[in-house]
Amino acid sequence: MNLPFPITSPTLLIDEQICRANLKRMADKAKRNGLRLVPHFKTPQSIQIGEWVKDYGVKEITVSSLKMAAYFAEKGWEKIHIAFPFNPLEIPSLHELAKKQPLSIQLVNEETTLMLVEKLEYPISFFIEIDAGYGRTGVKVSDFGKIEAMLRLANSSDKLRFRGFYIHAGHSYHAAVEGLRVIHEQNKAALQMLKDKYRTEFPELITRTGDTPTCSMFDEFGDIDEIGPGNFMFYDLTQARIGSCRKKDIAIALAVPVVDIQKERGEILVHGGGVHLSKDVLIGPDGGRCYGEVVHLAEKGWEIAGDPSFLKSISQEHGIIKANDELMKKVKVGDVLGILPIHSCMTADCMGEYFDLSGNSLDHLKGRYFQY
Amino acid sequence: MNLPFPITSPTLLIDEQICRANLKRMADKAKRNGLRLVPHFKTPQSIQIGEWVKDYGVKEITVSSLKMAAYFAEKGWEKIHIAFPFNPLEIPSLHELAKKQPLSIQLVNEETTLMLVEKLEYPISFFIEIDAGYGRTGVKVSDFGKIEAMLRLANSSDKLRFRGFYIHAGHSYHAAVEGLRVIHEQNKAALQMLKDKYRTEFPELITRTGDTPTCSMFDEFGDIDEIGPGNFMFYDLTQARIGSCRKKDIAIALAVPVVDIQKERGEILVHGGGVHLSKDVLIGPDGGRCYGEVVHLAEKGWEIAGDPSFLKSISQEHGIIKANDELMKKVKVGDVLGILPIHSCMTADCMGEYFDLSGNSLDHLKGRYFQY
Repeated sequence: MNLPFPITSPTLLIDEQICRANLKRMADKAKRNGLRLVPHFKTPQSIQIGEWVKDYGVKEITVSSLKMAAYFAEKGWEKIHIAFPFNPLEIPSLHELAKKQPLSIQLVNEETTLMLVEKLEYPISFFIEIDAGYGRTGVKVSDFGKIEAMLRLANSSDKLRFRGFYIHAGHSYHAAVEGLRVIHEQNKAALQMLKDKYRTEFPELITRTGDTPTCSMFDEFGDIDEIGPGNFMFYDLTQARIGSCRKKDIAIALAVPVVDIQKERGEILVHGGGVHLSKDVLIGPDGGRCYGEVVHLAEKGWEIAGDPSFLKSISQEHGIIKANDELMKKVKVGDVLGILPIHSCMTADCMGEYFDLSGNSLDHLKGRYFQY
Repeated sequence: MNLPFPITSPTLLIDEQICRANLKRMADKAKRNGLRLVPHFKTPQSIQIGEWVKDYGVKEITVSSLKMAAYFAEKGWEKIHIAFPFNPLEIPSLHELAKKQPLSIQLVNEETTLMLVEKLEYPISFFIEIDAGYGRTGVKVSDFGKIEAMLRLANSSDKLRFRGFYIHAGHSYHAAVEGLRVIHEQNKAALQMLKDKYRTEFPELITRTGDTPTCSMFDEFGDIDEIGPGNFMFYDLTQARIGSCRKKDIAIALAVPVVDIQKERGEILVHGGGVHLSKDVLIGPDGGRCYGEVVHLAEKGWEIAGDPSFLKSISQEHGIIKANDELMKKVKVGDVLGILPIHSCMTADCMGEYFDLSGNSLDHLKGRYFQY
């Protein structure tokens, strides 16, 4: 076993080459289609990885909270978009940030729009979020009454500027390929209809869509102006199952030490559990649970096994691998294995720090003040 | 709505009074039974909450990683026990820590025991972990060959001192009351048998058991010497369902801002998702998923509703509450609601910081270096 650098405890590895290849592929696709790529940084949550992103012509980024926007403020981004229904309790914090950095936010109702009209001290632009049809968040695409009430309110303020419509098809994470195609066509049609309807009044309005599966799998985006996927920077086993990526496109792996081996059960106990990977899980066709897939760490990263072994259960710090015969034969207590995550955004959020393959630490918003 | 202090974004609240009542109840039970309480700090992971714990006569604590042990080292604890099968790659880090602070570790195999015999530079005591029967970790209770091989190896070192046997019945989290009683009786019998068998050779050996359900629900511990539960300090909805606690014994709640209301669906969108609560879930008798229960925040903490509303789904930052009529009638965008967690250890780990009801910040191992 040749590790890329000495590893003694659960450590989140990032392969810069894979991450950059994912960025390049998406940036090239955006370019071919005349789309602007505004990647969602809820996945990496990292200023240093942001520097890689700049190499692909990206000028604006998306984040999922004001706290995350503050983390990236004044780091050389032309604009930061906060893709979460704006929380009116954060108007004072928004002011602090809007003083320093151009921002845009997302609105879904008249109540919050009105509070902004009454209280905004600095110019802010906004998208109206449209419900992609799965009922998590957003205005119904046919609710013109609500859309126009929000636009009228915004027009009464000299601080609020309408940018356009945003749609995030989060249900694409649970769809099969044919379902994905339907979702993609619905998104395109919805955004086209809204643009046609409102572009006389707002000639500069833009439309944006955001999920990794449709952005990864399709090549035709109609009249959409911008895409804002995030997960594609790292991908994960969920995306590989959907078909958004190949397993070899997954850019992060959790290195976990082997602490015990149960030969008769074919199981390996590792230090790696819910506080490292999160509790996200994939259910197999046979009902079996998978919390991650074992990869072999090597000097230049990791190697995917032809016949992979899986993490079959996790608790707070423990993980149990159901190992195939080949792995059982060679594994020893004190080895370090790699785990491809089920949900890379959550794993990165749990770990709060990355290490590249040379052992350099890369920041994450949730980085710990306590280092040991 | 009278919040205990101004809250504008997802915030983890702790009710010190409830936490202290939980500590007192467990400490009193330990005293009545002649048990030593060695609480597991994987739940609070907090030096400041540790100061409360000292008021109940606790001298030694349990942690789940070397990193966590380092966080608590030299904070006035007589000894710190690391209740995780020891990872031999961490022997150098163990030395760093063992220089400063008495420690004990947990062993489950000969391989790691041998590596310690060969490399230990400072005295360390150890428990042998016994598999409670659910196959996560530990030596089988009847595997005397392995137990004795480990003891022989340890005897050959002047640094390794055998303390006794540790059993953690993690499967009690999934058991009903009658199953719990069986588990408790099995644990008692297993530890009694091991003590009887080895006490001639090791007259000072002690036995310890650790899970919150059996420690909370039973009052008779036979010949067991020590208990090491952790979750009982906070409890959560999982423990309330098992019967370990009442809902009003739950000591933490996540405060979440209301950002949108879908009247026709009876749903409330809040800023509070997997990065705040973790993805732990309870499945209802009807198959419905529950990611947390809504409580009403008030000046002196929170109030549990008679007819509660639930978080029915979460994604990375979003939570959707299925609200009852009463809540729907009074809720407004810009309100803040409380959420009782499914798994308090994981929620605290996600949040990395607590606020008491006066708005004072309390530390957590995973605290962020970046404050906004």
